[in-house]
Amino acid sequence: MFGEELQRVREKSVLIHNMTNSVTINDVANAQLAIGSSPIMASGIDAIEITERSDGLNINTGMYDGNEWLIEVGRRSVELGHPTVLDPVGIGASNIRTQGLLELVDEVKFTAINGNVSEIKNLVGLSAKTQGVDAYAGDLLDEKNMEKYRAVFENYASKRGLILVMTGPIDLITDGRETFLIKNGRAEMTSVTGLGCQVSGLISAFLAANPQSPLRAAAAAVATMGVAGEIAWEHMAAEDGNATYRNRIIDAIYHMTPEILEGEVNYVLL
Amino acid sequence: MFGEELQRVREKSVLIHNMTNSVTINDVANAQLAIGSSPIMASGIDAIEITERSDGLNINTGMYDGNEWLIEVGRRSVELGHPTVLDPVGIGASNIRTQGLLELVDEVKFTAINGNVSEIKNLVGLSAKTQGVDAYAGDLLDEKNMEKYRAVFENYASKRGLILVMTGPIDLITDGRETFLIKNGRAEMTSVTGLGCQVSGLISAFLAANPQSPLRAAAAAVATMGVAGEIAWEHMAAEDGNATYRNRIIDAIYHMTPEILEGEVNYVLL
Amino acid sequence: MFGEELQRVREKSVLIHNMTNSVTINDVANAQLAIGSSPIMASGIDAIEITERSDGLNINTGMYDGNEWLIEVGRRSVELGHPTVLDPVGIGASNIRTQGLLELVDEVKFTAINGNVSEIKNLVGLSAKTQGVDAYAGDLLDEKNMEKYRAVFENYASKRGLILVMTGPIDLITDGRETFLIKNGRAEMTSVTGLGCQVSGLISAFLAANPQSPLRAAAAAVATMGVAGEIAWEHMAAEDGNATYRNRIIDAIYHMTPEILEGEVNYVLL
Repeated sequence: MFGEELQRVREKSVLIHNMTNSVTINDVANAQLAIGSSPIMASGIDAIEITERSDGLNINTGMYDGNEWLIEVGRRSVELGHPTVLDPVGIGASNIRTQGLLELVDEVKFTAINGNVSEIKNLVGLSAKTQGVDAYAGDLLDEKNMEKYRAVFENYASKRGLILVMTGPIDLITDGRETFLIKNGRAEMTSVTGLGCQVSGLISAFLAANPQSPLRAAAAAVATMGVAGEIAWEHMAAEDGNATYRNRIIDAIYHMTPEILEGEVNYVLL
Repeated sequence: MFGEELQRVREKSVLIHNMTNSVTINDVANAQLAIGSSPIMASGIDAIEITERSDGLNINTGMYDGNEWLIEVGRRSVELGHPTVLDPVGIGASNIRTQGLLELVDEVKFTAINGNVSEIKNLVGLSAKTQGVDAYAGDLLDEKNMEKYRAVFENYASKRGLILVMTGPIDLITDGRETFLIKNGRAEMTSVTGLGCQVSGLISAFLAANPQSPLRAAAAAVATMGVAGEIAWEHMAAEDGNATYRNRIIDAIYHMTPEILEGEVNYVLL
Repeated sequence: MFGEELQRVREKSVLIHNMTNSVTINDVANAQLAIGSSPIMASGIDAIEITERSDGLNINTGMYDGNEWLIEVGRRSVELGHPTVLDPVGIGASNIRTQGLLELVDEVKFTAINGNVSEIKNLVGLSAKTQGVDAYAGDLLDEKNMEKYRAVFENYASKRGLILVMTGPIDLITDGRETFLIKNGRAEMTSVTGLGCQVSGLISAFLAANPQSPLRAAAAAVATMGVAGEIAWEHMAAEDGNATYRNRIIDAIYHMTPEILEGEVNYVLL
């Protein structure tokens, strides 16, 4: 599973338009290059045109400043049939952002939405405690309470007609009909800023290259990050910390092959 | 000294709101994660709310564009009793910036201000030659002229009721009553962009986690960066340069323990 | 050739004002520090003043949002006789950007313009297919069609009175009278975001430090990046990918000496 989806990303060299935050913008670009896609970042006066000439759009609200451009560009992307991804960073971190992002998902029919557990709980209307842009530890789902929340997430995806991705110790990827649970990655990944942003960048590229199998494409992107996090850790020396881990994870994405991905992914399909 | 302050940062996982420049914003985030705090970057429409839900505020003017938001958010942070830190990057580099930042420090009662020697001289009204955002070599203080300027810095801190931090070959941290001088770090650190921004990010986290001992907290943050710079250098191979040094410094912050910090710090308390 | 130009950059410590995109802004700063110059980034209310106090200006349109500030600051820089460099990132990627950048080069008499083959073709009015901000593979020039296009590029440089730099497998640097072709670097460099932005940053520093020989200065900057890309590759381990390559290239710039540059550069002067 997932090897074919990766292979298509490697072959197609899709162009992804990113409207994203300045914290992790460089990492998103290098992660998209690492997987074989081509990133372009445009949030200004030619954002509509850039979207029209791209193969997919990735909107990330890590430094949220209102919906105006996001709605307009997002709608144009959807209208063109491009995969249109939202990473609602920090939904729940402020009322302004929460209300703005709930409006955004009503106004733009996103193909996929990717967030951590606190963000996804806030998105679907479950109570969640949020600490800034990071998942709150008390929100994390283990195998028991994952089952409890799964129906809510599947229902949201089904009603909205989108792919919902929740990343964490166990990743959940659902379109409401089928649900992947993936258990790859390492706890130390939470000490690197922007891995969630990179996952959204990868999801955008995988969706653009795999229009025939969007759910598997999104899951393959998530699996790629998890497996990369494991491989990267194997190359860490004793003195290496989160800055080196950041680099090694992108390096591992760069070297990811269908064979490695299929050999290392740990998933169930429900 | 300083081990307790570090220990509290590791234990408390404080949330720091950063309003900072896009040059070094990723490094500030990874440095704050490395020390065990949680960064959030928000400079837009929900900046006030983000400050209200955070444990401290770090304002950095590396890409200065006026005071409007800075004064409003800074005042709210002070009003809430949160540690509120200013890194007046580039004060002295333009008249607009100098005047703007002098107004900012009059309007917001900062807990701490951190800059290089050229910036701090400009701040306190001493003549200084500035080269952009870097300290001018002729401004650097050795042990002799440090003594000459110390009284001016202590007087400024005392009058303003804040902690003044000047980083350089010798770091000075004073609240006007007590003054730490720290001699850690390496000259090669000037070839890595943004280490000063990272220090301000660390000071914010240390202050938020150590409300009972703010002077020691600020000094502990400065000492952490100096010791990290030394440890990182020990792991440099012959071909490694400033890009790898940048990563290794954050890695060393990630691995910093109270024991290492106390064993390596080289300070005097005056 | 080129050793003297590098030596002057190392000795003079010029201050370069960068108005650039947030994707690669950190890399540009670290690359300029690596070569021995001092970067300052300012795009806001004090950009004019910062330019007045700098030794050169580097404008990069990686996240283009209109010309207003760019024309005003660019003209001031030219008026002061400072080397004024444009990296027209993404010209051709949208009509708004193409028209805006063609207006910009009419309004500001740039000292040098640096782009990839798709960008330079768009600039000089040749038909080009563009994929976002990256060079389109079909646009790449080999030794045969380089000859075909060279006259067009030389004519543009001559008419405009500027230095035109086109980077790619073969780099071309011309002032219309003399033309350098440089064959250094590696194909893997296209998987690292922002190396073109770094080259423009280096060109700015080399021009500011070498007012007596601008063409050779620009070529020396391009050669420095190509040679750094080769040296950096030699230090790559099997598991290293584009993130580590990014760091090793800046590291190699940091360690570049006149001797290494002269020994490794592969150029012809036409």
